[in-house]
Amino acid sequence: MKKLINDPNQVVEDMLAGMVAAHSNRMKRLPNTNVIVRKEAPIQGKVGLVSGGGSGHEPSHAGYVGKGMLDGAVCGEVFTSPTPDQIFEAIQAVDSGNGVLLIIKNYTGDIMNFEMAAEMAEAEGINVAKVVVNDDVAVEDSTYTTGRRGIAGTVFVHKIAGALAEKGATLKEVEAVAKKVVENVRSMGMALTPCTVPAAGKPGFELGENEIEIGMGIHGEPGIEKTQIQPADEIAQILLEKILDDLKLEENDKVAVMINGLGATPLMELYIMNKKVSEVLKDKNIYIHETFVGEFMTSLEMAGCSISLLKLDDQLIELLDEQADTIAFKK
Amino acid sequence: MKKLINDPNQVVEDMLAGMVAAHSNRMKRLPNTNVIVRKEAPIQGKVGLVSGGGSGHEPSHAGYVGKGMLDGAVCGEVFTSPTPDQIFEAIQAVDSGNGVLLIIKNYTGDIMNFEMAAEMAEAEGINVAKVVVNDDVAVEDSTYTTGRRGIAGTVFVHKIAGALAEKGATLKEVEAVAKKVVENVRSMGMALTPCTVPAAGKPGFELGENEIEIGMGIHGEPGIEKTQIQPADEIAQILLEKILDDLKLEENDKVAVMINGLGATPLMELYIMNKKVSEVLKDKNIYIHETFVGEFMTSLEMAGCSISLLKLDDQLIELLDEQADTIAFKK
Repeated sequence: MKKLINDPNQVVEDMLAGMVAAHSNRMKRLPNTNVIVRKEAPIQGKVGLVSGGGSGHEPSHAGYVGKGMLDGAVCGEVFTSPTPDQIFEAIQAVDSGNGVLLIIKNYTGDIMNFEMAAEMAEAEGINVAKVVVNDDVAVEDSTYTTGRRGIAGTVFVHKIAGALAEKGATLKEVEAVAKKVVENVRSMGMALTPCTVPAAGKPGFELGENEIEIGMGIHGEPGIEKTQIQPADEIAQILLEKILDDLKLEENDKVAVMINGLGATPLMELYIMNKKVSEVLKDKNIYIHETFVGEFMTSLEMAGCSISLLKLDDQLIELLDEQADTIAFKK
Repeated sequence: MKKLINDPNQVVEDMLAGMVAAHSNRMKRLPNTNVIVRKEAPIQGKVGLVSGGGSGHEPSHAGYVGKGMLDGAVCGEVFTSPTPDQIFEAIQAVDSGNGVLLIIKNYTGDIMNFEMAAEMAEAEGINVAKVVVNDDVAVEDSTYTTGRRGIAGTVFVHKIAGALAEKGATLKEVEAVAKKVVENVRSMGMALTPCTVPAAGKPGFELGENEIEIGMGIHGEPGIEKTQIQPADEIAQILLEKILDDLKLEENDKVAVMINGLGATPLMELYIMNKKVSEVLKDKNIYIHETFVGEFMTSLEMAGCSISLLKLDDQLIELLDEQADTIAFKK
């Protein structure tokens, strides 16, 4: 295992120290926690947005803490849910009396811990709403999940719910638009290589020299099939077909596209994937409002990508277009 | 070789098609070229900025085409200088009569081809100035270079010269500030793994299971030494020491820091590197004005990173802080 780390058991600690050192003008770390919040939190008159999950998916989620997106991110150990007490601290730190929305990726541990934290917060008189993101169409039920997994589409939930919260909407309104995004976003990924959790010291699974896996989860959960490497155009079509089957887009529908790198995929290859994605959508007369290409939700140094499509209506377009000013997402 | 590509000889073509499809609201591709320019080029009353070089370093340089940075980027084949005719087309497309600054990384092929293009442009009556970036302190002279190589520090040249050009400065003024950045920026990198040029099909060099290379170039040019993997803190100190030796910073000097991933390095590891970098600079009473962490100049799927320091004065701070709106760099 060759990694730029010090102690495999200290990677989250060291990362957060380096992140806060880099961005102390934007964010702060709550003392004795792995919680990152906006420097000015809590923001008066605004619903607070909190997300989080296991680390190793950077820039998710701390990279999205800032104006127009999240108020707080709770960083668990690598690929491990954050604990309820830390989530509770995040909720308390961002609540200005207008309530807090929790944006949770659908993993059993995350659901359980965020729900416990919500109960703790409610006992303290804080209004809490929850939205569970389950955008990954690859498989129903998975290693750590009942139902579909939550992956890169979560970033659209941060963006759109964050934009509405920034305008001063109520908790109910912010929750409703977050749920609308969840209903309209679908993703699917594939891997060229596995990744190694530092504390484990060896890859979470194996892929042969010319083998890829279609439909992999962001923690290396099994996908649909292992197959020989294929041209990017064919891989793009496989992923897109399953997304389109599920999202049931019609001619003249509008979408946002996200081509997400899993950590070790050159930007060149993500753009090559986008070539086919844009062609297929154009052929189907689906209008692409905006395309995001980059690393949004990664799996350490896994090579591979995911594609996300978000079906847009006028409200979602307006909110997607609003300003955002975070480390990893600026508009 | 497992890559998300179609034909190894078509990767630049496919990438540019996917890039323009994603960002057609911002950029256009000049017909029958690998030249990307701002959608609104040429911009009246403004000095044009053109950079470029071999592809495989994305987001360099097309990712920096936009408001406050470049007007045009010329994309060569992978790790191969763009041809003079294409550079000439870029110059013509961005010149509004106020002249064009070429920002060239110090590689023999790039220098030769950009100089030929400059001569072609001057023969057509276009004023051209050139700045050569040689920020890499690792080695004097290298595989493709006489003198020091140009690497990630180039992005600071794009940013600062671009900001001054946007304000309507003259070609002489923009050239002068670009040269000031070159005089004040130093970088050094290291690699954990090699990368594979698609058309070659195999890695450009070898590293053992626990071996790293200090001072590597962004095309895999040899560095200072191959050594066993060390803790991130020690690697950060090795790179930083050589940079600081050369840059001769004093107490209370101000710097901008860039921690640049080479393609396959998780953001987590870049932040872990930044932890030590920020500590060392703080210990020396050097003030960090801003820290940039991410992928700015990559080497395909090479794992590793580079550190860049830019010594700042009031003018450079003002220009660094100005707005920029490109795919890969927004302020």
